Amino acid sequence: MTAFTIDPNDVVGAVARLRARRPRVHCITNAAAVTLTANVLLAAGAVPSMTVNPEEVPDFVAGADALLVNLGTLDPQRQAAIDAAVEVATEAGTPWVLDPVFVERSPVRLALARRLAAAEPTVIRLNRPELAALTGTGGHETAGDATAADDASADAYALSSLSTVARTGDVDYVTEGGRAVRVAGGHPLTTLVTATGCATGALMAGFLAVEHDAVVAAAACLAFVSAAAERAGAEAAGPGTFSPLFIDALNRLSPEDIGASTRIS
Amino acid sequence: MTAFTIDPNDVVGAVARLRARRPRVHCITNAAAVTLTANVLLAAGAVPSMTVNPEEVPDFVAGADALLVNLGTLDPQRQAAIDAAVEVATEAGTPWVLDPVFVERSPVRLALARRLAAAEPTVIRLNRPELAALTGTGGHETAGDATAADDASADAYALSSLSTVARTGDVDYVTEGGRAVRVAGGHPLTTLVTATGCATGALMAGFLAVEHDAVVAAAACLAFVSAAAERAGAEAAGPGTFSPLFIDALNRLSPEDIGASTRIS
Amino acid sequence: MTAFTIDPNDVVGAVARLRARRPRVHCITNAAAVTLTANVLLAAGAVPSMTVNPEEVPDFVAGADALLVNLGTLDPQRQAAIDAAVEVATEAGTPWVLDPVFVERSPVRLALARRLAAAEPTVIRLNRPELAALTGTGGHETAGDATAADDASADAYALSSLSTVARTGDVDYVTEGGRAVRVAGGHPLTTLVTATGCATGALMAGFLAVEHDAVVAAAACLAFVSAAAERAGAEAAGPGTFSPLFIDALNRLSPEDIGASTRIS
Repeated sequence: MTAFTIDPNDVVGAVARLRARRPRVHCITNAAAVTLTANVLLAAGAVPSMTVNPEEVPDFVAGADALLVNLGTLDPQRQAAIDAAVEVATEAGTPWVLDPVFVERSPVRLALARRLAAAEPTVIRLNRPELAALTGTGGHETAGDATAADDASADAYALSSLSTVARTGDVDYVTEGGRAVRVAGGHPLTTLVTATGCATGALMAGFLAVEHDAVVAAAACLAFVSAAAERAGAEAAGPGTFSPLFIDALNRLSPEDIGASTRIS
Repeated sequence: MTAFTIDPNDVVGAVARLRARRPRVHCITNAAAVTLTANVLLAAGAVPSMTVNPEEVPDFVAGADALLVNLGTLDPQRQAAIDAAVEVATEAGTPWVLDPVFVERSPVRLALARRLAAAEPTVIRLNRPELAALTGTGGHETAGDATAADDASADAYALSSLSTVARTGDVDYVTEGGRAVRVAGGHPLTTLVTATGCATGALMAGFLAVEHDAVVAAAACLAFVSAAAERAGAEAAGPGTFSPLFIDALNRLSPEDIGASTRIS
Repeated sequence: MTAFTIDPNDVVGAVARLRARRPRVHCITNAAAVTLTANVLLAAGAVPSMTVNPEEVPDFVAGADALLVNLGTLDPQRQAAIDAAVEVATEAGTPWVLDPVFVERSPVRLALARRLAAAEPTVIRLNRPELAALTGTGGHETAGDATAADDASADAYALSSLSTVARTGDVDYVTEGGRAVRVAGGHPLTTLVTATGCATGALMAGFLAVEHDAVVAAAACLAFVSAAAERAGAEAAGPGTFSPLFIDALNRLSPEDIGASTRIS
């Protein structure tokens, strides 16, 4: 693994470009995530669209700067929309994020995720059980810190899938195989609010629209989200009040605060 | 254009009737808007129902006092539900609002919106790019203040569609062609919360259930929403905390506060 | 009716087991409820899954500790998902809750609800108009306190359906026919937030995963929700701020507070 890191100023710069350029992000996401995802994108400066109608998706993706494909609450309509969206994005060179939610719970969904990974998403965002299911290594479903074997598995999966892999957890790990970084920080209340991970995947697509290095874009997104979560967590009385405060922080965190909170190694 | 305005007391009166009569509003709306829309209606005093199942929609619309048809996240099921809903509403004389979300982004959706506009919705609620797409005038997609040409276009569209047109923006414009008013106020955070415009369209349907003059109903709704947004914006730390405070204000604003905030000209 | 009550310590114990065991609850619920339901379950300690894809539902239900079937925003896909889910739950002996939302508004939905009630859900959660529609007694659609005839109707329905019936209202009534309890408390703002009742049904499924006596599980859930609603209502400025505070309370209420708030008779 090459020695490599990302400067906090690169995170700050990516956030500033997101706020200034207002990229359009088309999201095919699950029913539990749609509202939070749209609000996270709006707060951070992006312009979301959310239709999952296969007839409409090609026009929306063609007009978008980035695409999110999230496999939660998957249904036949979403599956058809995903195929249409990925085809348009691939042809246009539009960056896209694959988020294979809960593939460890459903063989049907796992098969689709594998087919989509073969279409070379710019970034695959997932957690440990999802990565274990995709790589067929199993045995990682329990909580706990990621091991060196987990990291090696992520590196290998990035190389074989030709995608950047962003594995989230207590410490996030972003790898393209040859280069990798860890992103620390965040707040435990994040895990008690549904769809914050899904919304992060959509925001990562927004970062890909303003930062061509996918490792930098993914890590910058995760550092920004961690900074906002820390701010919200410090003010919240529980997961209910955390959610609006997290959105406020995405909208209001200053460059100085973002830089100071960034812990990438 | 006839000289015409609406007294703040008419706004206050419409809000009071909404709170007292609790009209039933059936909403066919998009996935990102469904929760906020239901909560906005409940807070303001109306009773929402939200099913988009074509089999069930006729019964729900038959039992409703007003109908919202919002074209966001359109899919085949919603399209079938819309046709069934509009047929029942038209036959029963139930007022309905058409909200042609994002028609400038999708030719499929634009064609449907034109077909629905021909069914003479009581009110068509839209923004400038949507109006430009519907009237085929184009060139209005950028931000900025509405021009006299925009207003003339809205007047002409109201006359040709036989609907009241409510064009929202920094200053809202409500016209039936012969009479028109402007509604000022509101707060910029509103644009950073997904579906506040969609929820406003649903609330406008609620106002149509308690105020037969569609220009007065639409303008009263917009003035009420602006007053609530101003109150929320004064207390919020960002778009996340704005949303619950906006709903609180819809529920709690006093007649005096509503009257004092109303700026219709 | 046998003299019967539930000790506050049983409520406290059930909440403690929910928080400790983190049961998986699969939810087939309506579009307006999906986000709040997932957040309520997460805050209370359970692990929600929400897919309504008929292809995936069997795997998710097979891996779940309890199931919710909510009939809101019913559509053909949800209907197919429900049939698949109930079959898996019945075969595996997994407890499940039926929530026949708005059956008094739609004959199509009422027919489905009757068919599902025949599959012997562990608990049927409903309100007075829904119970009146299911039992064909009618005439109960208006607000007001439940009468002795309402309670007798709930008892009879529990006996005939072989399910525990949890009828919610100003005072909740939980009956299996032979044993029954009343649960008092709560806060009026609850009725102004969409889907709090739906989310309560999902949480009740979570309680069934940690408490085998369905009357105790349903009553403990309702007492816990009432305690959280009272805490939130005391701090909220309206229905918008009530919602996040309610979720905070579900996550943070101490055993002492829950026990002190419990009013079961």
